Amino acid sequence: MEKKYLFSPGPTMLPAQVLLRMAEPIMHHREPEFEKIFAEIREGLRYLFQTKQEVLVFTSSGTGAMEGAVSNILSKGDRALVVRGGKFGERWGEICKAYGIDFIPIDVEWGRAVDPKKIEQILESNPPIRAVYTQATETSTGVRHPIKEIAEIVRRFEDTVIVVDAITGIGVFDIPMDAWGIDVLISGSQKALMLPPGLAFAALSDKAWKFVERSDLPKYYFDFKKELKSAKKNQSSYTPAISLFVGLRETLKMIREEGLEAVFRRHERLASATRAAVKALGLELFAPETPSNALTAIKIPEGIDGSKLQDLFFERFGITVAEGQDRAKGKIIRIAHLGYYERLDMIMVISALEMLLKEMGYAFELGSGVRAAEEVLMA
Amino acid sequence: MEKKYLFSPGPTMLPAQVLLRMAEPIMHHREPEFEKIFAEIREGLRYLFQTKQEVLVFTSSGTGAMEGAVSNILSKGDRALVVRGGKFGERWGEICKAYGIDFIPIDVEWGRAVDPKKIEQILESNPPIRAVYTQATETSTGVRHPIKEIAEIVRRFEDTVIVVDAITGIGVFDIPMDAWGIDVLISGSQKALMLPPGLAFAALSDKAWKFVERSDLPKYYFDFKKELKSAKKNQSSYTPAISLFVGLRETLKMIREEGLEAVFRRHERLASATRAAVKALGLELFAPETPSNALTAIKIPEGIDGSKLQDLFFERFGITVAEGQDRAKGKIIRIAHLGYYERLDMIMVISALEMLLKEMGYAFELGSGVRAAEEVLMA
Repeated sequence: MEKKYLFSPGPTMLPAQVLLRMAEPIMHHREPEFEKIFAEIREGLRYLFQTKQEVLVFTSSGTGAMEGAVSNILSKGDRALVVRGGKFGERWGEICKAYGIDFIPIDVEWGRAVDPKKIEQILESNPPIRAVYTQATETSTGVRHPIKEIAEIVRRFEDTVIVVDAITGIGVFDIPMDAWGIDVLISGSQKALMLPPGLAFAALSDKAWKFVERSDLPKYYFDFKKELKSAKKNQSSYTPAISLFVGLRETLKMIREEGLEAVFRRHERLASATRAAVKALGLELFAPETPSNALTAIKIPEGIDGSKLQDLFFERFGITVAEGQDRAKGKIIRIAHLGYYERLDMIMVISALEMLLKEMGYAFELGSGVRAAEEVLMA
Repeated sequence: MEKKYLFSPGPTMLPAQVLLRMAEPIMHHREPEFEKIFAEIREGLRYLFQTKQEVLVFTSSGTGAMEGAVSNILSKGDRALVVRGGKFGERWGEICKAYGIDFIPIDVEWGRAVDPKKIEQILESNPPIRAVYTQATETSTGVRHPIKEIAEIVRRFEDTVIVVDAITGIGVFDIPMDAWGIDVLISGSQKALMLPPGLAFAALSDKAWKFVERSDLPKYYFDFKKELKSAKKNQSSYTPAISLFVGLRETLKMIREEGLEAVFRRHERLASATRAAVKALGLELFAPETPSNALTAIKIPEGIDGSKLQDLFFERFGITVAEGQDRAKGKIIRIAHLGYYERLDMIMVISALEMLLKEMGYAFELGSGVRAAEEVLMA
């Protein structure tokens, strides 16, 4: 018998009942029934983003909304600051480059969070910087950046906005958009939202909408102003991924029923249990100081082949975990616990890790990882 | 009992077996199994587009690929020619405008096809025009434009490419990309491809790829060169709409099993039957001279309220047909027959049309539309 399990940081495991709702005969996106779904989604996304603003929905990967957060926010000649502490931080820089936007990178060691003071220094000594681009979780390293602190700094600069890619973050831990004064908050469907990939989200503060008014960079499909106008009529500007919208209504309902606070606590618990297991096994976290509750990045111990470990996860147990990307390739594996995961899911993947490490000759006490996780989960 | 039927030109009715395949637990897009699916899709799309080129797949509405066909093909200062015979022709103009591209519009009366001679004249008298943007079917009017003839003209101009939005066209009638010398051919998932919306396609000729090399307009998510590189590794540049890819493999298989020639004949038959019914009912086609086999646009007869007719289709029979858009609003209804439709589907919708017209006081012989359709379908 072969069962399969996803522990990758997107796509993540999906609730079967949501998959089946999405398999219902497709409806037309101009029908009143779809507009009702759209209205529910708008409300549910406001709850999830903790904002009074409209949350725009695009049919695309999360990267599409990231691009929109450059092409709609900035104007020719603007300068930006980009936090680069991993593959997705680098993506902000690539997008700026594609639009001819000059940017100052803050290169952070992979596995570390950015120091907000550095951002403050650069904003103060290099005016005007129009936007600070960062991640809530840098998915490639498992690091959580200090968004609250960065937002507090940026708020003091009238002509600067903070743009947060929270594709890995929203629905995992608390990122209250309005309360923290985040100007642009972005997410995607295939992570904590328990859906297949294909939808991207973006919400903007009043301050950010003023930047949009001024922006002169070219945009069409990811035109935020146009999409805002459509959303207010419970429509999308272009034919939306209807089946994903249908699923989104369901998963937003699930999140609402569980309650955001409980959702955050669940992720905190799963992440703590995973980290405790890692330590009990004598392994090291790749982001020991500022780990995200979305995923746990584990350093591959001396003498173990990281790629082989990842392959064996799949071969022996049907489990997909993520290996390191780019410069972290072969050095880490990443185990995700964001979205449709609960306590016993983590026990499974930790147990599999134990059995594989034993097989690969790594010395430790079998069962010690699971025991440490259980202790956290029972607390 | 309430049954629902889609006769809108996107989204269209979907095969239940494909919906169920897409409801299977999601896989990771870097798994060998997904790469196998990707490889099959590449092959299937080449068959569908009748090309040796790579067909790029984007997670977006069709409009995303249209935008890419401007931002990847043109460069600053380039001029374009845009065929505007409906809402989607206008979209080409809007995209050019968004990118600061100067364009000459050919405004064609809604319901008519463009005259290729006009294109020839403009290309000859206004060099250099770098690209001609048109539709295979103008979905808003039901018109089929003479792509073969336009492509023949454009081919004579070394520095000009023809870009065809065949979102409503591919898999309906013959548009052999390589044989006709089409430079950029675009499509989407939610029409003849029998899938939910969410995927867009673009294939480029060698000539068009040279334009891409030269292009200096900003692009990131819809970067054709980057996507080509990824596709050759059976990957997408950004997390793809995995479930739609899984469905795409199935529907491409269905098309291949039926065979393109048979697919085109089926659409020709359904369209002919629908048009025969329309005429038998004493109604007029909106595109009498150059109707597309994808959909049939029917003029609303004197004394009938077009919006009410559309509403009654849904209220009485659960049928979604499309009304006119923009300047055709209230003047036409559009009945689609592209994708997962066969003979008796058309009988249903024609019969519903008869019953509704009778109810609304339009004078005609009940059953005459269905009879005319049957005569065509039996031939």
